[in-house]
Formats: sequence, structure tokens, C-alpha cells
Amino acid sequence: MRIPEIQPLEPVFAEKAQQRWDNLIKPKGSLGRLEEIVCRLCAIRRTEDPQILKKRLIVFAADHGIAEEGVSAYPQEVTQQMVRGFLGGRAAICVLSRQASIELKIIDAGMVQRLSDPGLISIHLGDGTKNFLKEPALNHIQVERALSAGMALAEEASKDGVDLLTGGDMGIGNTASASAIYSCLFKLRPELVTGTGAGLDEKGRLHKIKVIQAALEKWRIDSDNALEILRHFGGFEIACLTGFYLGAAANRIAAVVDGFICTAAAAIAISAVPLVRDYLFFAHHSAENGFSQVIGKLQVKPLFNLEMRLGEGTGAAIAMRLIEQAVRLYREMPTFEQAEVSRENQ
Amino acid sequence: MRIPEIQPLEPVFAEKAQQRWDNLIKPKGSLGRLEEIVCRLCAIRRTEDPQILKKRLIVFAADHGIAEEGVSAYPQEVTQQMVRGFLGGRAAICVLSRQASIELKIIDAGMVQRLSDPGLISIHLGDGTKNFLKEPALNHIQVERALSAGMALAEEASKDGVDLLTGGDMGIGNTASASAIYSCLFKLRPELVTGTGAGLDEKGRLHKIKVIQAALEKWRIDSDNALEILRHFGGFEIACLTGFYLGAAANRIAAVVDGFICTAAAAIAISAVPLVRDYLFFAHHSAENGFSQVIGKLQVKPLFNLEMRLGEGTGAAIAMRLIEQAVRLYREMPTFEQAEVSRENQ
Repeated sequence: MRIPEIQPLEPVFAEKAQQRWDNLIKPKGSLGRLEEIVCRLCAIRRTEDPQILKKRLIVFAADHGIAEEGVSAYPQEVTQQMVRGFLGGRAAICVLSRQASIELKIIDAGMVQRLSDPGLISIHLGDGTKNFLKEPALNHIQVERALSAGMALAEEASKDGVDLLTGGDMGIGNTASASAIYSCLFKLRPELVTGTGAGLDEKGRLHKIKVIQAALEKWRIDSDNALEILRHFGGFEIACLTGFYLGAAANRIAAVVDGFICTAAAAIAISAVPLVRDYLFFAHHSAENGFSQVIGKLQVKPLFNLEMRLGEGTGAAIAMRLIEQAVRLYREMPTFEQAEVSRENQ
Repeated sequence: MRIPEIQPLEPVFAEKAQQRWDNLIKPKGSLGRLEEIVCRLCAIRRTEDPQILKKRLIVFAADHGIAEEGVSAYPQEVTQQMVRGFLGGRAAICVLSRQASIELKIIDAGMVQRLSDPGLISIHLGDGTKNFLKEPALNHIQVERALSAGMALAEEASKDGVDLLTGGDMGIGNTASASAIYSCLFKLRPELVTGTGAGLDEKGRLHKIKVIQAALEKWRIDSDNALEILRHFGGFEIACLTGFYLGAAANRIAAVVDGFICTAAAAIAISAVPLVRDYLFFAHHSAENGFSQVIGKLQVKPLFNLEMRLGEGTGAAIAMRLIEQAVRLYREMPTFEQAEVSRENQ
């Protein structure tokens, strides 16, 4: 597997950005995490003057063999129905993308039912993954192709001049996949990282935990082997997203990570290449059970917590606005000297 | 003192809004606090179909007699210099207001130096307040006028068709004023609710605490007497903001409360008329020391925490965008029936 070369950030640009922040007309540090965002963005982009002119959000949709074990509150056909909604501009992520001027692309990463729609980009790595309770969800070739496809989309975004990139997910059954990944990768008992997904009751959640537990025991994958974890428990959308984050980092584009599903893909990417973490902004604290454990293990701090658990990239779309606001403050505020404002007493 | 009549919210509109949310194409409750925001907005506006077409932010600027005790890291002239920055469109709040299409108004509530600028609205209740270590900061007439002026601005906004209203503050020394208010109102030791403001060192903070402690002991105001607390320790901007929140509630307009200073004004308003709380959205968790205590006492939960402590209404401006995003999701997402998406399994 070809993993792209990823450079460490350039701290000198973050330092220069902090110097500029410290000269703008406000108490030092008073814009808190908005200052940190811009400093890191400068280090990622290797510039003192970052801009957010072009934002792109790519939603990856796929189906999951594990859905046949009854781990989701919704029937599998909802993946395809929701994708129709995305293509028609009529879903949560469409509303938020319009509001925040984010270019939205929809990918069939491997849905059970193919849709013929000129707006849908087909990667289609299979008609859904296999049931990971019975066989590995993906095969080696599918993992490779998914990673390559994700990387290629990030590279394309770079060529198109995209300044800020994010991914979203759609796939009935994919919280089971993400929970299995977290459990295996972080050696956490499944009940600690398994929630109700789109709306299971507690009985349904306990069943989902049992399924994940059985699968973990069947495959016994080493926690250090991120790509094998991905192959056994992942989904096509998750594997594409893993490649997407690797590709964003390789192309020095900041990527915003949405919630429970996208973070599983990011966790695989970080486990494979720890430097990727520095290129990622974790958008929000998902309300899905166990997310606190996950971000603790990843040592990352999402930007906000609105108790959301919708997926599609909705948390990331909101975070993109925040990042844009931070950059505009950094670029448009004057310095003390320019504004003729007195400094603090020494 | 005439306090306007404030009606309780109409819960039926919140219930109808939740019914609509539950029919939109997403798992029930999966938009978390964005759903709560809209439900409460519906109850405030008495409609099932709220819109955010017109947003207004009013910054109240004033000077504080207590500044002569050396409780701020910045010299008093910065109030006036920053107001010049606001009028010139060149400060943090100007950038955020432009970005979020918020109409911005700047008020001289009582600055030491008057500015003649056609963009500045003059209420000018005095050339700064008195030093509350020596005499009450405001007199009875000033409190009355400030409250009336704030209420009148909220009423004017209502007449102008403003859908969402917020206030901001500027005033060197005003964190000392807010800390004294919190300490007295919530019977908390000053060290628990006194921070470094715009940038004191720890020695400066300890001095500020001593000043506040001495003033509390001198005046010994009853914690139940919110308006006397306001008169003794408040500022002109804080008193105007108190009236502003009361006026927003009386006119059934939702008001977004910014950070440490604005929340002190909101706390006074809530203490005077507890129903006001339901009309307020607390924007963010200020990084100023003691804010956790304050929101605990008020039993409110800010929307986000970006570790900001700038004031001017900057946190509120960011929150306005969030509220707007929530309303757009509510209005623009289709129902399961409209989108032909299957419901969850029963």
C-alpha cells in the first residue's frame, strides 16, 4: 500500500501568526481557540496570510453488510434514499452547505443500489461491504482502491484551489463499523464505544454490542495494524475518508473531521501516519456514546459540542464557518499601531 | 422603576416545532441543541415558522470610575479609541458583523470623552461612572435612564422588524464591575468570580479582588436587591444592557447574551424578573475566571466554548450564525414523506 509522504507542520508560520494576533486590537489571547485555529492553519498552508476562498465538502455513501445483523434502527434502503435527498439539495448537509457557501460533492463509494444521476460521482467499490461477523468487510484490493480514491479526491481539491476540505458520511449500519474500529484500535470494551446510532433502543444497543464483541473475538486483529482493522471492520465510505485525510495532509490542505464516523476514518489515518493529526480540525463532540473516550485516546479537542449526532458532515459544515470567521478576524482586524489604540500598561 | 410586563413563553409552539423536527429526514433528536434553539425560538416568537431575516447587534460603551484603582491592564482612553475603531468598521465585532450580515449600532452610554461622530448614538448618562470604592457607581436617576434607554432600543428593534437581537460591551474597568455584581448577587467570594480581565498579571488580579472585597464590605447590599447591586457596582453599559434584555423579553424578541460583562447585565435582569431567562440565548462560555460559577448559578448553558474573552459582542455574533443555521435547517429540510425516505423500524 502506497501511503503518501506527509511533512511535519512548519511551526515558524504559526509563530508569525501568533505575533500578528498579539498586535491586533484586542487583549492578547482573547480570541482563544480562534487564534489557535489560524496559527495552525498558517503552519499547514506555510503562509502568514491564509485565506478561505474555496471550501469543499465531499459526502461518501456506502452500505454495510453488518446491517443484516439488525444493528440499525433504519432499513438499508435509507442509504440510497438519503443520497437522492443529497442530490436533490434537500437534506441537512445541503442546507448547511448552501448557507456557508461550501461546494458539495456526493460520492457512491459502494452502495447496494446504484443510482444513475449526473450529480453522483461513482467510485462504487462494491455493492455494500460484507457482513464483518462472517467475513472481513472489505478485501485487500477494495481497501487499496478506497484509500487511493480518497487521496485522489484530496489531490484534485488541491489542484482546484480548495482552501478547506471536509468529508461527510452516509451509510446505514456505519456506527457499528465505527464502534468496532474504535474498540479494536483503542483496546476498549465495545460497550464503551457503542451507542444507539440513528435511534436504537437499549435492547438494540445491547444486541449491537454483542455483534461487535463476537466479531472482535472472531478476527482478533492487532491494535497496531490500522489497515487490517479497516479491512475487517470498515466500510467503503470510511476507507475512502481515511485516504481522503491522508491525501489532504499530503497536499497540505487542512481537513475538518465531522463526528463519530469520520473520526473513525481519521483515527485509522492517524494510527497509520501520526503526522496526519496536525492537519485535521475536529469539528464537534458527537453525542454518540463513547465519543469522549475516542477523543481522549486521539488527544484531540473538538471545536464545539452541540450534542449533534447526524453525520453527513453537518458538524464539519458548521465548523467550517467558525474557521472562516477566525481567518477573517485575523486578516481584517487592524494592529494597535494602525488603529492608534494604546497598549496595555507594562 | 417601571419594569415592563413580561409574558411566559408559549410552550405549544415549542411542541409543534419539535413535532416538525421529528418529521424531518434525520434520526430523531440528532441535531441536538440546534433543535432546542428553534423550539425555544418558536415559543418566544409565538410561531411555528420562525425566520431570521434581520439581526441587530448594539454595542454599549462606557467608562468606569473604578478604573482609577488600577484594576485594568489598559488605560482608560482605550474605551474611546476602541469606539473609534468600531465606528471605522475596524474591530473584531465589525469583522464578525459583516461576515454574518448583522446590523451594528454603537452607543455612547457614558464615556469619559464624548466623540462627535454621526455613526455614534449618544445616550451619555455621564462622563463615566463614579469609583464604586468611594461612592455608588450610578445614582438612582442614571439607573432609571439607563434601563429605559436599553428598553427603548429593544422596542425600536421590534418596530424595525429585527428577529434576533444582541448586545455587546466596551468599557475599560468593566470586568471589575461585573465581578462585583456576581459576587454580591450570588454571594460568592470575589476571588471566585474575578479574573485577569484584559490582561492583568496575578498580582494585578489580587489587587482587583481586594478592591472588590473592600467595596462589597463598604456597601453591604442585599443579594436580593438586584437594582441596588446594579446602582452600586454597575456601569452605564451594564445598566443599559439590563434594560435591553428586559425590553427584548417584553417585546418577545430572542436576545443573545455575550460573555462575562453582558451576562452580568442578564443576571441582574433575571434576578429582577426571572421570566427574562427564557428569552435569552447564552452565546459562549467566557474564558474569564469564575464564569463556570456564574452559569451554574444562573442555570444556563452557553452554546459553545472557544475560550474567548474579548467582549464587544464577539461571542454573540458567532452564536447568531449558529442560531441562523438552526433555523435554516428547520425551515429548509423536507419531511420523510416529502423526501420519500423510510422511517425507522418499529
